[in-house]
Amino acid sequence: MPYRYKLRLISRACLAFRNSRTEKSNTHFAASRNFSTSGTVNMRFVQFTGKDGGPKHLGVQLVQGGDIIAVSAIDSRIPNTMKKFLEGGDDLLKKAKREDDVNLLTLVERIVAEGRSVIPETDVTFLAPVTKMDKLACVGLNYSGHCKEQGVSPPESPVIFSKFPSNVIGPRDNIMLPSISDKVDWEAELAIVIGKKCKALDKNEVEDCIFGYTIAQDITARDWQKSKRNGGQFLLGKAMDTFCPLGPAIVTKEAICDINNLPVRTWVNGNLKQDGNTSELIFKPYDIVAYISQFMTLLPGDVILTGTPAGVGFTRKPPEYLQRGDVLETEIEGLGRMRNKVL
Amino acid sequence: MPYRYKLRLISRACLAFRNSRTEKSNTHFAASRNFSTSGTVNMRFVQFTGKDGGPKHLGVQLVQGGDIIAVSAIDSRIPNTMKKFLEGGDDLLKKAKREDDVNLLTLVERIVAEGRSVIPETDVTFLAPVTKMDKLACVGLNYSGHCKEQGVSPPESPVIFSKFPSNVIGPRDNIMLPSISDKVDWEAELAIVIGKKCKALDKNEVEDCIFGYTIAQDITARDWQKSKRNGGQFLLGKAMDTFCPLGPAIVTKEAICDINNLPVRTWVNGNLKQDGNTSELIFKPYDIVAYISQFMTLLPGDVILTGTPAGVGFTRKPPEYLQRGDVLETEIEGLGRMRNKVL
Repeated sequence: MPYRYKLRLISRACLAFRNSRTEKSNTHFAASRNFSTSGTVNMRFVQFTGKDGGPKHLGVQLVQGGDIIAVSAIDSRIPNTMKKFLEGGDDLLKKAKREDDVNLLTLVERIVAEGRSVIPETDVTFLAPVTKMDKLACVGLNYSGHCKEQGVSPPESPVIFSKFPSNVIGPRDNIMLPSISDKVDWEAELAIVIGKKCKALDKNEVEDCIFGYTIAQDITARDWQKSKRNGGQFLLGKAMDTFCPLGPAIVTKEAICDINNLPVRTWVNGNLKQDGNTSELIFKPYDIVAYISQFMTLLPGDVILTGTPAGVGFTRKPPEYLQRGDVLETEIEGLGRMRNKVL
Repeated sequence: MPYRYKLRLISRACLAFRNSRTEKSNTHFAASRNFSTSGTVNMRFVQFTGKDGGPKHLGVQLVQGGDIIAVSAIDSRIPNTMKKFLEGGDDLLKKAKREDDVNLLTLVERIVAEGRSVIPETDVTFLAPVTKMDKLACVGLNYSGHCKEQGVSPPESPVIFSKFPSNVIGPRDNIMLPSISDKVDWEAELAIVIGKKCKALDKNEVEDCIFGYTIAQDITARDWQKSKRNGGQFLLGKAMDTFCPLGPAIVTKEAICDINNLPVRTWVNGNLKQDGNTSELIFKPYDIVAYISQFMTLLPGDVILTGTPAGVGFTRKPPEYLQRGDVLETEIEGLGRMRNKVL
């Protein structure tokens, strides 16, 4: 089969359950079944630098573990950050996501065929796939299992709080334990990435405003979140430096077969701690986006963490917290896996 | 007295109580007493466009109500936004704030003498003086009078919550009442503007990290903040669109004689509602900055609202809330006055 044709087939496939983490680069050329009906392109957007730093680039992988096409190096019209890319609006999205014109995929095919700007994963440093967003909003108590392990009733409407954009770190970066807490906990979460400006959405308008999904860890200092120290406000316990690992990629919504059926897992030093599924979400991603948009305008690049399943540290008997030297791994099937060391 | 010399004198004056809002443009050339000892320049930084829009500029006023020197139009090395200006770091700050080299003031004097880029206040539209910050953090319950009017004890440590940067509007912009609240209230506040990246500060290191001060309204939907609707988290009640009027200027710290003795006032339709003074602050600006910096890195352009004095609407008998058509005026002596219409 000609090289270019294979790529086109992949671009239409629903990747969610096809690309397990055991797939490695090059295997993506074989994966061409399981088509979605949308006709749009399935891509994994990443931000990266070279192994030793250097300029930041926006890249695309066609499958998890696959080579990275440095799209912002291919065409100077394509910004080198995800946020600017999304802010570029419909014109840029069209360029990136549709096949019916000269578009990013056409360029990508050309570049791949030419052997230009295709970089193995092992040659890059992954950055968080989006940074400097206006909003890094979070939903609390959004898995029945997580409510149960705390002995609290599920909320009647989503509980929304926030972190600060500068809390975000990359999918391989180190989590730095703050000196002011000894109760730092994990919370694996599905994160929604907003693709366009929107306000007061009906639920049927939500899909158009979501660009894709990624993985987050809503790292939390329980001694600041749960105590009355900050008047009951979560912010200080949630918004410390390095408390939001994000990544490794933003997977376009078209690539997800069913966002409400994705396994969500956390390992600490290889031991499985959280083993949930987005099917257990009390408020679903579309509900959450519609809800928050009633209060405020959502903007391109905004990220919404949807809550964590059961299995966090503070509800264990005895409680468990992150320690220096721990390795925290976070996976959502189809989206990828993060690996953050705790220092 | 030669024109240039007069300007230099003004630049060294502590402006806080000298420039009442009754002063109008041109009067600043007469105000040359009451010197500060720092030797640095007292300035009011503003962001503005022309009356009918057009390009955004960073400007400097030497006194409240005075003409605006469009500094980003004078020298292309000076960014046209406050955030980029602050991010420019020490080199840019040196250019803007010291007289011992070719600096912004020298340029300003030259331009004023040449009659270039000096614009009357009446010819501009003021924007918020800083936007797109990483953090828009707020302190709750920080005036004894405001604690008392709610019947709550003053907190033992600062209570920190946040708004989103996109909630910020300019000092003359309209506050839009959201359809989902009928209990929208006012909260006049002194706001601190961070000038440089800093973390885990001792109190004696704080001054160096503060660039200046401005005025904020921490507009609040009490039916979302105070109810259990959002699980007790303030965010939704605090972070609706247009809920953070900011401005009119960032006054450099050197221009403030005593940050802990500034009258803070709110009028609704000309009726005085809040009449406090920063001397009543439980946690002072330096305490607050040092405190927050223990949790997270502060960044240039970050804004911290310090809390509101007594006189908000919801504690009145009967309670009072903003209505369409109201005019909300907010003043901190020496910093200026905002005037926001409620729609």
